[in-house]
Amino acid sequence: MSAAFANCRSVLVTGASRGLGLQLVRSLAAGSASPCAVIAAVRDPAGAKELQSLAEKHSNIHILKLDVVDQDSIDGAAKEVEALLEEEGLACLINNAGINVDANLDTVTAEKMMRNFQTNTVAPLMVTKAFLPLLKRAATRGTGMGIHRAAVINMTSLLGSIELYWGDRRSTFKWYPYRTSKSALNMVTRCLAVDLEADGILCVAVHPGWVRTDMGGPEAPLSPEESISSLLNVIGGLNEKNHGGFLHYTGEPLPW
Amino acid sequence: MSAAFANCRSVLVTGASRGLGLQLVRSLAAGSASPCAVIAAVRDPAGAKELQSLAEKHSNIHILKLDVVDQDSIDGAAKEVEALLEEEGLACLINNAGINVDANLDTVTAEKMMRNFQTNTVAPLMVTKAFLPLLKRAATRGTGMGIHRAAVINMTSLLGSIELYWGDRRSTFKWYPYRTSKSALNMVTRCLAVDLEADGILCVAVHPGWVRTDMGGPEAPLSPEESISSLLNVIGGLNEKNHGGFLHYTGEPLPW
Ligand SMILES: NC(=O)c1ccc[n+]([C@@H]2O[C@H](COP(=O)([O-])OP(=O)(O)OC[C@H]3O[C@@H](n4cnc5c(N)ncnc54)[C@H](OP(=O)(O)O)[C@@H]3O)[C@@H](O)[C@H]2O)c1
Ligand SMILES: NC(=O)c1ccc[n+]([C@@H]2O[C@H](COP(=O)([O-])OP(=O)(O)OC[C@H]3O[C@@H](n4cnc5c(N)ncnc54)[C@H](OP(=O)(O)O)[C@@H]3O)[C@@H](O)[C@H]2O)c1
Repeated sequence: MSAAFANCRSVLVTGASRGLGLQLVRSLAAGSASPCAVIAAVRDPAGAKELQSLAEKHSNIHILKLDVVDQDSIDGAAKEVEALLEEEGLACLINNAGINVDANLDTVTAEKMMRNFQTNTVAPLMVTKAFLPLLKRAATRGTGMGIHRAAVINMTSLLGSIELYWGDRRSTFKWYPYRTSKSALNMVTRCLAVDLEADGILCVAVHPGWVRTDMGGPEAPLSPEESISSLLNVIGGLNEKNHGGFLHYTGEPLPW
Repeated sequence: MSAAFANCRSVLVTGASRGLGLQLVRSLAAGSASPCAVIAAVRDPAGAKELQSLAEKHSNIHILKLDVVDQDSIDGAAKEVEALLEEEGLACLINNAGINVDANLDTVTAEKMMRNFQTNTVAPLMVTKAFLPLLKRAATRGTGMGIHRAAVINMTSLLGSIELYWGDRRSTFKWYPYRTSKSALNMVTRCLAVDLEADGILCVAVHPGWVRTDMGGPEAPLSPEESISSLLNVIGGLNEKNHGGFLHYTGEPLPW
């Protein structure tokens, strides 16, 4: 990857066992100008074989146990990261873990709606809350906004854009639980942007593109490498103008 | 009220025990051109004293027991309405019931987020699903779109607009559970609009203004009468151009 993260001291990625989360860790750790600490949070460290072999090659990767829908797990993870990073604080939190509880109008149930909302909307909020003291600590150094100071990046989706679900796109991916959870995550991002602005913590929602992962499926046009190399450049270049926004992995702004 | 509902045969309002729901029933029943059936759905009919005395004065008001977060209650209510309206079907469903689980960044918990989402987002979807056979039946008559045929009206809020939560509005109502639930309801509305278009069922999200109810509080600028008389005119005039949109109680379109 590029040197976009040269001035970022630490990154934490949730859902780093596979897909885009694993690729984020791989690209961040392999870069010529890699952050001091790349914290790969997974709910089952023992089962994350690819991540483990990656961590054997890169000493800056730290594997952390974190189930994002379990408050005890979140609190425990925040304590571990505090012990690791100490007065440095955490510079960049990437809320990447997510699920797609596939359901259309015929098959949707209250339970499916609630389950997707819990992982995709509530969990990023509760994880951000738990890491807030560490993000604030990082933000005490530096001026302006960006990953050189402190940032929260929420992995949302184009499918969460209410505006764009119309016209030509009307026939595709009629997923009630997933779409509503990502629209709600966009509002969480905006609420956080309002509340964390005074602390100098940048908050944005990003769409990684449609990518060939377990979630994206084999038909997707982008490889994880393509999506993440572009996305990391975009994240690396974020500044106060992007605060509270919704960005495509190519850097273009998207409508809510 | 005006004659805006002259050509609407039946309306069902959820959360009709007090506030805007009760005012909707009052204004609809009292109009010179009132729908044949005004179905006032409440979770506790025995406790809804004001509604009961209103129903004693207007024979077209039917009180229905409906707790919108209880699937058995939803299914039972749909059966009762089917027995009442038979081959007419249901022309207009107003998903009005809602709660505000007050919480800012400091006080928000996963449980508060889930509870608000369940009532404000999931419930309108599950209620709409249950009444869909009756809405489709009503939509077999008539052409174009509007309450003369069949419509689903979701009571959302300006506070659910991600776009508008910025600039001058940045300091007010930092309510994570409520805001996210209404953004997600807006996406539900859009998803329903996509899926029900072929059936000729109009779907819109409406903001009633800031109104003096138990939820809106005594500081709100609008009385329930002012909000609802304008809103009913807007709903009465909806057509295919409004399908899938988000409208202010004055009729202006709002951004997502
Ligand atoms: N792929 C796409 O085309 C696409 C497009 C738009 C947005 N996105 C978003 O990008 C993010 C990553 O997607 P992906 O394609 O990489 O998905 P994926 O291949 O299905 O991987 C999902 C990741 O999230 C983790 N996860 C799920 N629930 C978790 C929990 N409770 N605690 C901790 N980790 C959990 C999974 O861990 P386990 O291995 O333990 O299950 C896995 O690492 C998601 O937020 C997704 O919505 C993806
Ligand atoms: N007032 C405002 O300024 C304002 C602004 C924007 C949007 N809104 C929206 O407008 C709608 C009505 O608001 P309001 O001001 O009239 O609120 P309100 O005075 O608090 O009344 C809420 C109504 O919803 C009902 N309800 C709540 N949970 C229910 C459930 N599980 N099953 C059935 N009914 C339930 C309540 O019934 P019980 O009596 O049984 O509790 C009550 O009738 C809400 O969706 C609200 O979000 C209001």
